[in-house]
Amino acid sequence: MSKGAATRIAILDAAVAVSCRRGLNGLNLDPLARQAGLSKSGLYAHFGSRAALEQAALERAAERFRETVLAPAKQEPAGIGQIAGVFRRWLDWPELAGLPGSCPFFAAAFELDDESGPARDQLVRLVREFLAVLSALVGHAIRRGQLSLSTDPQTLALELLTLRLSYHWQARLLREPGARERTWDALERLLVASGARHVPGIEPSFGR
Amino acid sequence: MSKGAATRIAILDAAVAVSCRRGLNGLNLDPLARQAGLSKSGLYAHFGSRAALEQAALERAAERFRETVLAPAKQEPAGIGQIAGVFRRWLDWPELAGLPGSCPFFAAAFELDDESGPARDQLVRLVREFLAVLSALVGHAIRRGQLSLSTDPQTLALELLTLRLSYHWQARLLREPGARERTWDALERLLVASGARHVPGIEPSFGR
Repeated sequence: MSKGAATRIAILDAAVAVSCRRGLNGLNLDPLARQAGLSKSGLYAHFGSRAALEQAALERAAERFRETVLAPAKQEPAGIGQIAGVFRRWLDWPELAGLPGSCPFFAAAFELDDESGPARDQLVRLVREFLAVLSALVGHAIRRGQLSLSTDPQTLALELLTLRLSYHWQARLLREPGARERTWDALERLLVASGARHVPGIEPSFGR
Repeated sequence: MSKGAATRIAILDAAVAVSCRRGLNGLNLDPLARQAGLSKSGLYAHFGSRAALEQAALERAAERFRETVLAPAKQEPAGIGQIAGVFRRWLDWPELAGLPGSCPFFAAAFELDDESGPARDQLVRLVREFLAVLSALVGHAIRRGQLSLSTDPQTLALELLTLRLSYHWQARLLREPGARERTWDALERLLVASGARHVPGIEPSFGR
């Protein structure tokens, strides 16, 4: 990797770390430049504008999400096994990726919802890309006969996203001790309602 | 109302309007003071600190939520009618309250989740207060025989919150045209799964 590319990634990793605690609005360019050993104009030389930096930080967060959540789940059995594998890593992904706060996409989503511009467009693109991955996993499970033919992959993908949002709210904001068990329970009910007879990959700690 | 009290409310309403677009992090004290015809130190004289202003803005948003969502729903038939009435107004509450953005509590929740301090504590208190109101409405519906005795009011209250979060995500971020119908559909399924035979108060536009 060239020195320029390494510097760029170091800046973006620092930006992702800030944004998962304080959102994209919390990105302060001076300390970011200082951390990377650059002046603020040096930082602009890398990205061109604040909007471009935000957009690049979202893409960097997505790369880390793919490495942390999607790539390892490919080792699980295809179909429901991979759905459960993605969901399990998704629940803990900020910790697994070594981020100091919570999901940077959730923080950004509630900042950018009423905005327009390249950062919002990039976020929506990344969310849709991920929903398409979830839909494809649901499609595999249907073709394997693990979920019923009447299951709508896009609806189920959105319901998985909703469960993850709800977990965030319960665990991070309300700090409910039962958040995790309640979320796994809801995942199991959701998959059973979609025709699953057996839900593998449920956490061993979730014994009943 | 004294002039001081009126000024205080005007400042807080301006703060709520900003926070529903740009979050509490987006509150910039200079324009807020200017709008109220005060200096920045005059603004501090009213609230004491930025944290106290944020806390008071959250409480003001809650007052407007109670006026806009909870009070009118009391006119609906007790039980499921009131659950549906609250939910219907809750979906549109920023617009009904004349706010220029989306729900200020959702924005604040994803800012304050990893923080500590009085603003976070106030938000958690308000969310729990609202969940208790929802639980009580569910309890009324159970006692009237409209929902099954095995329904857990706290779980159902959280599921209603989850539906609302999911609606926000679909309608505001992804701008999905079917978000509203999908959400009413999910509300109906949720109540029917909890033993409801008839769900009144579903939007007339949601014809089937």
